[in-house]
Amino acid sequence: MRIDISGTYTDLYQIAMGQALFRDGRHRQRAVFDYFFRKLPFAGGYVIFAGLESVLETLSNWRFTGAELEYLASMGFDAAYLEFLGELRFRGDLHAPAEGEVVFPTEPVVRVEAGIIEAQLVETLLLNLLNYQSLVATKAARMRTVAGGAVLSEFGLRRAQGMGGVLAARAAVIGGFDSTSNVYAAERFGLRAEGTMAHAFIQWYGDELAAFRAFAAARPDNTVLLVDSYDTLASGIPNAIIVAREMQARGKKLRAIRLDSGDLAFFARRARAMLDAAGLEDVRIAASNQLDEYVIRSLLQQQAPIDIFGVGTSLVTGHPDAALDGVYKLASANDAPRIKVSESLAKTTLPGRKQVHRFFDDEGRYFGIDGVAGSDEPVPARLIDPFEPHKSIVCAGLRSEPLLQPAMKDGRRCQAECGVGEIRTLAAGRLARLPPEYRRFENPHRYKVGISEPLHELRETLRRQHRPGRPVP
Amino acid sequence: MRIDISGTYTDLYQIAMGQALFRDGRHRQRAVFDYFFRKLPFAGGYVIFAGLESVLETLSNWRFTGAELEYLASMGFDAAYLEFLGELRFRGDLHAPAEGEVVFPTEPVVRVEAGIIEAQLVETLLLNLLNYQSLVATKAARMRTVAGGAVLSEFGLRRAQGMGGVLAARAAVIGGFDSTSNVYAAERFGLRAEGTMAHAFIQWYGDELAAFRAFAAARPDNTVLLVDSYDTLASGIPNAIIVAREMQARGKKLRAIRLDSGDLAFFARRARAMLDAAGLEDVRIAASNQLDEYVIRSLLQQQAPIDIFGVGTSLVTGHPDAALDGVYKLASANDAPRIKVSESLAKTTLPGRKQVHRFFDDEGRYFGIDGVAGSDEPVPARLIDPFEPHKSIVCAGLRSEPLLQPAMKDGRRCQAECGVGEIRTLAAGRLARLPPEYRRFENPHRYKVGISEPLHELRETLRRQHRPGRPVP
Repeated sequence: MRIDISGTYTDLYQIAMGQALFRDGRHRQRAVFDYFFRKLPFAGGYVIFAGLESVLETLSNWRFTGAELEYLASMGFDAAYLEFLGELRFRGDLHAPAEGEVVFPTEPVVRVEAGIIEAQLVETLLLNLLNYQSLVATKAARMRTVAGGAVLSEFGLRRAQGMGGVLAARAAVIGGFDSTSNVYAAERFGLRAEGTMAHAFIQWYGDELAAFRAFAAARPDNTVLLVDSYDTLASGIPNAIIVAREMQARGKKLRAIRLDSGDLAFFARRARAMLDAAGLEDVRIAASNQLDEYVIRSLLQQQAPIDIFGVGTSLVTGHPDAALDGVYKLASANDAPRIKVSESLAKTTLPGRKQVHRFFDDEGRYFGIDGVAGSDEPVPARLIDPFEPHKSIVCAGLRSEPLLQPAMKDGRRCQAECGVGEIRTLAAGRLARLPPEYRRFENPHRYKVGISEPLHELRETLRRQHRPGRPVP
Repeated sequence: MRIDISGTYTDLYQIAMGQALFRDGRHRQRAVFDYFFRKLPFAGGYVIFAGLESVLETLSNWRFTGAELEYLASMGFDAAYLEFLGELRFRGDLHAPAEGEVVFPTEPVVRVEAGIIEAQLVETLLLNLLNYQSLVATKAARMRTVAGGAVLSEFGLRRAQGMGGVLAARAAVIGGFDSTSNVYAAERFGLRAEGTMAHAFIQWYGDELAAFRAFAAARPDNTVLLVDSYDTLASGIPNAIIVAREMQARGKKLRAIRLDSGDLAFFARRARAMLDAAGLEDVRIAASNQLDEYVIRSLLQQQAPIDIFGVGTSLVTGHPDAALDGVYKLASANDAPRIKVSESLAKTTLPGRKQVHRFFDDEGRYFGIDGVAGSDEPVPARLIDPFEPHKSIVCAGLRSEPLLQPAMKDGRRCQAECGVGEIRTLAAGRLARLPPEYRRFENPHRYKVGISEPLHELRETLRRQHRPGRPVP
């Protein structure tokens, strides 16, 4: 089984709207779209922006295959339009933060400028890649925040949502994980693969000590023994100690034992004491079994001596939210700013080509304010609350940097490919610039996103044009 | 971007355990594994078994590529083992219910019998494909249960967990959806693709009526107009009515309007009245926006005249559960039954090669009892509760059928490929055999899964061998 992201990896309405625009002779017109989200996942204070490299890779090779065009022909699309689609490549411009940056609701995160048809057709894949990877990277970062120096390893492929699991491994590492059990993802993205052993292996031998010995013989440089198959304290750990000593006699080291059931805090403490008493202070303790950021925090608050956490389902599915609500909205049509109106300001979009200015304090930390302004405006001196416009905040005098940087120009990448390790480092650095009150789990401080006065005025002007004030009957 | 399910689409520990078994000369030994789950998702009463065809397709072509073997070599695996992996194909046997069948916790759902190494290596992909598709098919079936004859269309790719979205479309249709917006999935799996139009299209024209006319001209045989861009009642529906009449004059029909915001029950009723008053009784009403089975039920209980529901996030992510907890456990090693012991009976596995007997009432409906027995046992006359063995139930005299049927023999499929349409029909038929008390959302009746007396005895014997009763210090 194989899945390609190609031209038809989109919603049918994108192709149908393209047909209408093509027929109307509008297919050379240029659009600006913004990718942004409205709600922070996990009741948290930030999102780690992830998936940009996947988008750039996909857009660089994006096209409709002959088979796809034949399929679309069978659905009744016009031959001239299909010929146009057959020639179509993504030739647009993308602006985005560096992958791994922390981003916030309401602000444009990716700005796409392209021919209207290609801009619409790639909406679905862009949302699909960014929403999911940002969700998982954010979940991973929450775990990294509480895990201190412990090793975090992603173990989720078996519970992942189909092939999504491959990108989950990538996103987990961006968010601060150290490794993955997913060999395919490790090879594909240059991640560190990590593995222990399963209960089935011990069942196979029927004898725990024999199984441990066989595994240690085969994997002398990376032996992790699962100790809870029969009786963790009476059998698993004592057998692991026997094997550790046998390995020592051969000049090798047992890397770790793994606990996968029961009270992990209790068993980790007992295991540590038993290992230490045997002179095996450097044998690590790994734990797994329904972990998430709250369980990891609780275990470490109890000073459970766990060195390695293996995390699966909650991480790769982004539980309990399961989706980031990112959207992709039209901001400009042929250089004319556009808004999507709504009864509520919260759902009215921000018109035109925009930049996001991030403000810093004197120590170079994020100040807690981003300002959205037209891309040709100077850095705003005052920002208006986009939902409660009677509120504003002065940001004059603060140092700022533009968040959105060129990522693709005329369909070509502006920078070389960026490896996951680099992105992980960048993410850790950016998150460290965010004061701790935005990172806490309980009622995190709200990072403010304001809009410039000219942008506010433009939105008001467009709103008035659109809403004639006819009463709803 | 492209993802293949090949040899490395697995957890590293599977490859590491294989290395140990190979080195120990055990690689020709035969294993029996069971796939089963412990907990029903969505606090519901059943699971729709989905993903079998994906597993069969994958296993039929499963292998390690040269590049994968080189990668594994770089990780330090032995050359002789890698040579073995290079030759390895899946040559095992699979038994499973028909895809689309309803299945229940504890009972074996797929039985895999194969060489120990291949059986372990394919665990991860099998869990990945079955857990997710069964989750989504079950979620879809819950929506179908309450949607009556309404059209259900899957719209979730943009919020799906990466490439998982492609399998979500397939699973949604198995569970009772009619169509998908996902063109790639539609082409791949022979599904009906369905699409409407986006707000951006109307923003593009700046004039709702002009946008509707352009769309109707381009898609005269499948026009669905989105009516909530400016003012649903004052603008959207009146403009849709104008276009519907213009289409009539050209011998065409407006298929539907779509509501995507606001109180869907209120707007649907008003829309219906306006369309009917204009003589457009056959124009359908589609609704979308954060739907799930509870919202659909509520809308229809309010008699909202909605004909088509477009469902995205909650469906494709299987919200709020996000994962089915399916596992894959060793049941037999070289024809010797094996169990995984645990402190609690609920986590102790069922040993040996097993069959599931499904019992029927006189009308051919499911009786509410499945019985698990050794595959060479006769149909049990009495079943024991696997977790509370003092409870039992008599099933003598009831008609029964074996649930697990040959799906693969020596790595070859036993039946021809089964199309999604066929699977969908089968699922609807099987679900209809399940009495309604198992299908309700609130405290559904618990479908009983019992074990035969010989199986109970075998498990007790193995448990006693494994648990010497040493006290935990």
